[in-house]
Amino acid sequence: MSETIYSYQRLAEFTTAIFSRIGCPKEEAIIATKTLLSADLRGIDSHGIARLIGYVRLWEVKRVNATPDIRIIHESPSTAVVDGDSGLGLVVAPFAMQVAIEKAKNAGTGWVSVQNSNHFGIAGCHAMMALEHDMIGIAMTNASPLVAPTFSIDKMLGTNPICVAAPAGKEPAFVADLATTTAANGKLEILQRKNKETPLGWVQDEAGNSSTDANILKKGGALLPLGGDREHGSHKGYALGAIVDIFSALLSGANYAPWVPPFPAYVPMPAQQPGKGIGHFLGAMRIDAFRPAEDFKRDMDHWIQGFRAARPMAGQERVLVPGDPEREMEKERSEVGIPLVESVVKDLRELGERLGVVL
Amino acid sequence: MSETIYSYQRLAEFTTAIFSRIGCPKEEAIIATKTLLSADLRGIDSHGIARLIGYVRLWEVKRVNATPDIRIIHESPSTAVVDGDSGLGLVVAPFAMQVAIEKAKNAGTGWVSVQNSNHFGIAGCHAMMALEHDMIGIAMTNASPLVAPTFSIDKMLGTNPICVAAPAGKEPAFVADLATTTAANGKLEILQRKNKETPLGWVQDEAGNSSTDANILKKGGALLPLGGDREHGSHKGYALGAIVDIFSALLSGANYAPWVPPFPAYVPMPAQQPGKGIGHFLGAMRIDAFRPAEDFKRDMDHWIQGFRAARPMAGQERVLVPGDPEREMEKERSEVGIPLVESVVKDLRELGERLGVVL
Repeated sequence: MSETIYSYQRLAEFTTAIFSRIGCPKEEAIIATKTLLSADLRGIDSHGIARLIGYVRLWEVKRVNATPDIRIIHESPSTAVVDGDSGLGLVVAPFAMQVAIEKAKNAGTGWVSVQNSNHFGIAGCHAMMALEHDMIGIAMTNASPLVAPTFSIDKMLGTNPICVAAPAGKEPAFVADLATTTAANGKLEILQRKNKETPLGWVQDEAGNSSTDANILKKGGALLPLGGDREHGSHKGYALGAIVDIFSALLSGANYAPWVPPFPAYVPMPAQQPGKGIGHFLGAMRIDAFRPAEDFKRDMDHWIQGFRAARPMAGQERVLVPGDPEREMEKERSEVGIPLVESVVKDLRELGERLGVVL
Repeated sequence: MSETIYSYQRLAEFTTAIFSRIGCPKEEAIIATKTLLSADLRGIDSHGIARLIGYVRLWEVKRVNATPDIRIIHESPSTAVVDGDSGLGLVVAPFAMQVAIEKAKNAGTGWVSVQNSNHFGIAGCHAMMALEHDMIGIAMTNASPLVAPTFSIDKMLGTNPICVAAPAGKEPAFVADLATTTAANGKLEILQRKNKETPLGWVQDEAGNSSTDANILKKGGALLPLGGDREHGSHKGYALGAIVDIFSALLSGANYAPWVPPFPAYVPMPAQQPGKGIGHFLGAMRIDAFRPAEDFKRDMDHWIQGFRAARPMAGQERVLVPGDPEREMEKERSEVGIPLVESVVKDLRELGERLGVVL
């Protein structure tokens, strides 16, 4: 696959122009861009600019509102429910995370459940907003149903990611950002492009048999919860995905389980809609609502250094701390630029031509 | 293995008497008993009365304080840090969970990090305290290091469980209670008794090679994080275990990572102790701080019924909702009694003779 390298700046200008063209106010187009491209910077290519056209298509079929009235519809000292008014999740989630941070300033913690939103990019971007305030940040979202619970052949949950970001002192922050499946859909897409099979334990076919077909989702198959099968703890991955769904959608009044709207605009909406849009859950915990932030950060440094000093097994260079690979990628791509595969460049060029923006 | 069936009442009287003999005040002996035996009732035999002798041994070596002054040492409207004063986690955790519930009544949510505690039994018992208040309950704890992070041969984390309990309406509550490893240590103990091997992906040997030896922990081996290996997402299980450690110990000032005190009293304490005792994290979210509890519970019923209606794969009778197996076991054992294997009965009889209590 040939790749072209673009500077972050160039992709950001293009993306902001596209969001502006579909009607986003300038400030929100900039926020949406920053959120979307944080995925490309951190090496999670499946969730970045490659999805820009997907967001535009959702706007074209009127499932995304470019000028939403995002607002708090219920609150307590440490909680809120935000109605995203069908806005881009890329804008709705940062709004909600800011509410969580403000709540945490006063009440010690802030917890915001969001209804009526759309896909929010990578969870890490939102959780990390808390770090500069010496808070722990938490972000989750539900997503359209691609995952079969343990023993099920029906797809009942999304890949439902969880991110927790915790500040450290001299060490970089701890950032764990994980789909609650063995492998996220983006990993399948990479294998599809390379015409390769998946390892066992990632997917099953439409009858629930284990499979190594990277195209199995198009044939009625499903992603598997983290663990893969019952013997390896898939009921735990299933439970974690379920927790994300409950926090994101049952607490907010969004759609849940198999009724979450699909991301591809060409996939029809589920016949039944028990809630509004998709749901997110954002949290912020002020460290010094528990103990002095300096003490916590000193211990985090010690914790991180302990893990870095753990002995690696033969054939492995080192033991990683959650967030290491993404941070290293962000440093590299900020300097060198972001590589885009040919098919993504082609899609973006066509999108640009259609909306009068040059890549 | 021969088993003897005891009524809950008989085991509860015995356990309360034992805790009283080591000096626990009557009320705390009753709480500790209820917490400990909730594991036996729910079928998590590794965490129940089989461990009673272990708690007594910790008291004998003065690592458990039978008359602790459990108290809040720091707080904000939605948070607190509790010092367990080396008390039984079986008593400290219910105290902390009650603080979380009281905080949630006023601030919408309550989050309590605990230092200076000991093992708290099963997480589910504490999280479920929130249900009767129409709250979501959350419970986690760190534990002594048995788990090797991805690529590591050193054991850096405990099995660090997470429980989330959410109320429903007509349906029974959702209760997800999971160790962040592929399999908990109790599963290994069962295989040891049967002289069987583990599946691949549960444990590794002291060099980090995959192993099926159920006795590998005694030979320098380690449990594996949920996922098993990198290709199957073990970095996610590792990250989840790390999150539990950070919330339970870094936020409270307890010991963390490889420095968490061991449960067996004969294992020496780690040379380095960066904190106090072991750590827990308890949370409560009042449903109606987000939306009317009736609406939430109606949606939870719909959610649960949806999963129960999912089509099972060939060879499986049904798709389970988290909490189903434990609740069904609790119903059965409440009626029929609790089976104890011969070796556990022998240990308990010896313990009883030593402390003057008849089983």
